[in-house]
Amino acid sequence: MGVIAVSVYIEVLTFYARQMRLLDALDVEGYANTFTEDGVTDHAHRGEKIEGRAAMIAGAKHALPRYAGVAVRHWNDHYLVDEVDENTLNVTYCSLVTRTDAEGAVTFEPTFFIEDVLVRVDGELLTRSRTIHRDGQAKQVAQAS
Amino acid sequence: MGVIAVSVYIEVLTFYARQMRLLDALDVEGYANTFTEDGVTDHAHRGEKIEGRAAMIAGAKHALPRYAGVAVRHWNDHYLVDEVDENTLNVTYCSLVTRTDAEGAVTFEPTFFIEDVLVRVDGELLTRSRTIHRDGQAKQVAQAS
Amino acid sequence: MGVIAVSVYIEVLTFYARQMRLLDALDVEGYANTFTEDGVTDHAHRGEKIEGRAAMIAGAKHALPRYAGVAVRHWNDHYLVDEVDENTLNVTYCSLVTRTDAEGAVTFEPTFFIEDVLVRVDGELLTRSRTIHRDGQAKQVAQAS
Repeated sequence: MGVIAVSVYIEVLTFYARQMRLLDALDVEGYANTFTEDGVTDHAHRGEKIEGRAAMIAGAKHALPRYAGVAVRHWNDHYLVDEVDENTLNVTYCSLVTRTDAEGAVTFEPTFFIEDVLVRVDGELLTRSRTIHRDGQAKQVAQAS
Repeated sequence: MGVIAVSVYIEVLTFYARQMRLLDALDVEGYANTFTEDGVTDHAHRGEKIEGRAAMIAGAKHALPRYAGVAVRHWNDHYLVDEVDENTLNVTYCSLVTRTDAEGAVTFEPTFFIEDVLVRVDGELLTRSRTIHRDGQAKQVAQAS
Repeated sequence: MGVIAVSVYIEVLTFYARQMRLLDALDVEGYANTFTEDGVTDHAHRGEKIEGRAAMIAGAKHALPRYAGVAVRHWNDHYLVDEVDENTLNVTYCSLVTRTDAEGAVTFEPTFFIEDVLVRVDGELLTRSRTIHRDGQAKQVAQAS
């Protein structure tokens, strides 16, 4: 893994700050627009692969009622950024997910390890693929393969 | 939102590392000194606005007994930094707050979304205003307005 | 504390991203190899000091059964990086530790404050010493001494 430019590292952190806020605001279309048109989300831990923005939006809207009345937040850490080529980045990180209810009580979803491929299109980063591994399963995925 | 210099981004992260440690050490004066003399903290979720360092110190000392015997920690994520002018930055981020007791047991305060205005005075960043939104309320504030 | 180069700051974040993943993967040898041969871990809160990679590996293997069936994750925040000399860095940060079980339920270890000395050997960062303070004890260590 080579040394990436510091400007790329900050660009990546800022990309995730924006994308996670759209996700946590349950802004389904806004979140889908941070993926490429053919972007893929692979929930590896439950064998569910969603391909393309349209399918992503449909799936997310289906899941929305689950989050009625709670504020979801994703807390990411330990980003590793690997430059595949000038406009393609492999990014891996861990994610802790909280749910805060109307009284302010916080509960937790499982923790996750995520492998993303980001591409820069017209100067802007987008997620081309996201593979999500749930922690605590038989075969722990603590690092990128 | 333009692209900020990487040095400014690191300056901001380092500012928060220092400020949060003062806050979590319950160093009321030290924390107040990371604000401008007329600095404002607006607890938007409970309609409480504290103006100026003196009021901030008085209010914090009043709240201290609440934290007797527990170690508070703020865990921030998803910083977005927007340069208003050379010495003024709008910064937004999320905050998870833990309380660790003498036995090491961890409990949680609600999660928050925060909007800060930082100013650089004599080469040093200070908070001019802080607006705190509690998560889980009727109108979720997941992003800056 | 002077201003460190942004490239050093990113180098440090990337070092911890790798080291924490090895730790959380329970890769005892891989983790020990991120320390110098004579690296020291001082669990200040329980008066236990482990010196050298060999002792670190033996101690960690002894502790492994405690983590059978759970996925451990360290979530760090508020890094402060101080350059002692060209190849020596003092780094301090806070750490939140989760345990996720097979059902995905998350529980918490205490929170910690950590003081590291990193050295750059043949262009690569290694931990020369790590002092770990548990939060919530009589004398709170919220900042570096």
